[in-house]
Amino acid sequence: MADVVAAQTAISDIDGKLGKLWYVGYSIDDLAENSTFEEVVFLLQTLRLPTQPELEELTEHMVNDRETADFVSGLMPTLAEQTSPMSMLRTSVSAASAYDPDGWDQSLMANYRKAIRLVSLMPTLIAYYDRHRRDLPIVVPNPKLPHAANFLYMLSGEEPDQRAAEIFDTLFILYADHTMNASTFTARVVASTLSDMHSAITAAIAALKGPLHGGANELSMRMLLEISDVDHAESYVTDLFERKDKIMGFGHRVYRNVDDPRATILRQLSKELGEAAGDMRWYEISERVEKITLEQKGLRPNVDFYAGSVLYYLGLPIDLFTPMFAAARAAGWTAHIREQYADNRIIRPDSEYIGPRDQTYAPIEERSAPGREVAS
Amino acid sequence: MADVVAAQTAISDIDGKLGKLWYVGYSIDDLAENSTFEEVVFLLQTLRLPTQPELEELTEHMVNDRETADFVSGLMPTLAEQTSPMSMLRTSVSAASAYDPDGWDQSLMANYRKAIRLVSLMPTLIAYYDRHRRDLPIVVPNPKLPHAANFLYMLSGEEPDQRAAEIFDTLFILYADHTMNASTFTARVVASTLSDMHSAITAAIAALKGPLHGGANELSMRMLLEISDVDHAESYVTDLFERKDKIMGFGHRVYRNVDDPRATILRQLSKELGEAAGDMRWYEISERVEKITLEQKGLRPNVDFYAGSVLYYLGLPIDLFTPMFAAARAAGWTAHIREQYADNRIIRPDSEYIGPRDQTYAPIEERSAPGREVAS
Repeated sequence: MADVVAAQTAISDIDGKLGKLWYVGYSIDDLAENSTFEEVVFLLQTLRLPTQPELEELTEHMVNDRETADFVSGLMPTLAEQTSPMSMLRTSVSAASAYDPDGWDQSLMANYRKAIRLVSLMPTLIAYYDRHRRDLPIVVPNPKLPHAANFLYMLSGEEPDQRAAEIFDTLFILYADHTMNASTFTARVVASTLSDMHSAITAAIAALKGPLHGGANELSMRMLLEISDVDHAESYVTDLFERKDKIMGFGHRVYRNVDDPRATILRQLSKELGEAAGDMRWYEISERVEKITLEQKGLRPNVDFYAGSVLYYLGLPIDLFTPMFAAARAAGWTAHIREQYADNRIIRPDSEYIGPRDQTYAPIEERSAPGREVAS
Repeated sequence: MADVVAAQTAISDIDGKLGKLWYVGYSIDDLAENSTFEEVVFLLQTLRLPTQPELEELTEHMVNDRETADFVSGLMPTLAEQTSPMSMLRTSVSAASAYDPDGWDQSLMANYRKAIRLVSLMPTLIAYYDRHRRDLPIVVPNPKLPHAANFLYMLSGEEPDQRAAEIFDTLFILYADHTMNASTFTARVVASTLSDMHSAITAAIAALKGPLHGGANELSMRMLLEISDVDHAESYVTDLFERKDKIMGFGHRVYRNVDDPRATILRQLSKELGEAAGDMRWYEISERVEKITLEQKGLRPNVDFYAGSVLYYLGLPIDLFTPMFAAARAAGWTAHIREQYADNRIIRPDSEYIGPRDQTYAPIEERSAPGREVAS
């Protein structure tokens, strides 16, 4: 279905030949350099950048919407003990639907408020889960901090320094949308039945959980840790290619023979964080892996590759890389859901039947099992 | 996307011109007449009908898999108080993933077991929720009863009579699959990222929740209750058409100018239940509405129209009609997910960008808000 146009959108656009990504016509470089995640949330939802009063109003809403219902936070001790971060996020976002003040109101304004609530809430869910599983006390949201900085604060209990907060904010911008990927498409299919915003976001999380979609930033970092020394990079990657294993964080369906513009930004941020930490190891291994992979396979890094070392330098637990991706992409998911609602037609393709025909029910005693497994 | 082939399938097939539906080549009439839901579960999963030992083994698994983890049943008092039945089902199926004994095992056999567990579990979740909200004690599953009969038993606390149980079983068969509808497609998109079975089913429930997909059986019955007397049917339906309102349970994307074969079966069952109850009212109103709608609009009833009165005669609470649909369709969803896993390619269509181009970030003090709503 790679060439099927499933929807028209005014939210984001890619030119795979030029290696360009735009949100509402603004290049990702321009936004990463000049904007904030809060501004980008406004941009994706309303298709223009906010004025000062509008940004202040949105920021106030986002701060107020960070806390969750007692029932949802009450699930966290058990979820922290029992389940993976993405399963936790899927379950707790689904559970949060019962506590949305707009209930089943499906108006465009109610869904705008629900969108802001979901974007605001997701870091809190992730941080509460993480604090519980580390047997640490919950850190409640800090209303003085911006969205991304507050996320780092709730995870560590310490206010991040300003540059770390800015870099994490940039990551949120870079992950906020990317046209019709599998999770965004899932969200739009669910929305096209006129199901509610929380249902569509729950389904998007379910799709992002799949290793063919989310997860590459986490696996990229695990690869860097396995390599562990820049001098091991060449043999590690060469061995991997000889085993015909897939290298994580490289190649892209859309960007071909050109850099993913997000990777270009993240490469620089990884370097900066390495220098600031006085530990260039993860940047240097990344750079070496990139060089070898381009030489041997002609593949270039995508957003997930350098996101791995950036998130690691920022101190995020590795298995929260994909949930962080979800928290950022929620900005785009909710925008796409509202766009779908605004001009809806149910998304329901066809299937082609390739099974047996004209069978007749035989009494059970006349049947025999063929020589194969029950669940073949 | 109505004509796009999203997947090949050997699970079910429709001929919209002939008004025929087949599961694995068996006509729905043949299966409704001769088979049981347990047999149909086996058929959809393994693409053939079971032998006697295979059916006994499956039945034993389905009986053993009816109970749920304490954490999941512990959510029910709150969910019963706070949320709608489909939101409850989405949240509790998502939460159940943490307790599946096969964990993240993605082998075909593990996913066969997960499929059976999910199909077995869903009536229990729905019944527990319903008993809680009615302040009645939970009725634990009865291992001596078949799947559909046990569902009625857990709801009412009484063993259903044999014919009611058979008719409910037939409903489960009729709702078990229907090629590439929106929820099945959602399940396959999520599975195509290689996300897990519970994620894909959670997403399918999210899609079925939408009023353009599930919900028509419930709304059909609410219409019959509003009409309340067969003599009011003509004026009610005529008024509805004059207001240009949509009539629920009529018309179908695939079956055109021909009866939905499932409606033909359900019409007869509705009549039988009316006769047995000594109360023909809902059948007679249905029949009259069908006649008027065909005359005035040329529309024929689909599966949901007569399912309304059948489920009502069987005593199911009206807002559990769509959850019952989900519980039955879980048989098809899980089969489609396993089929997707078995020969996977990520389902990721394209989008067409129609928004502004070449915008440049301006400092916030230079921006102005156009004369329109923020969330337009």
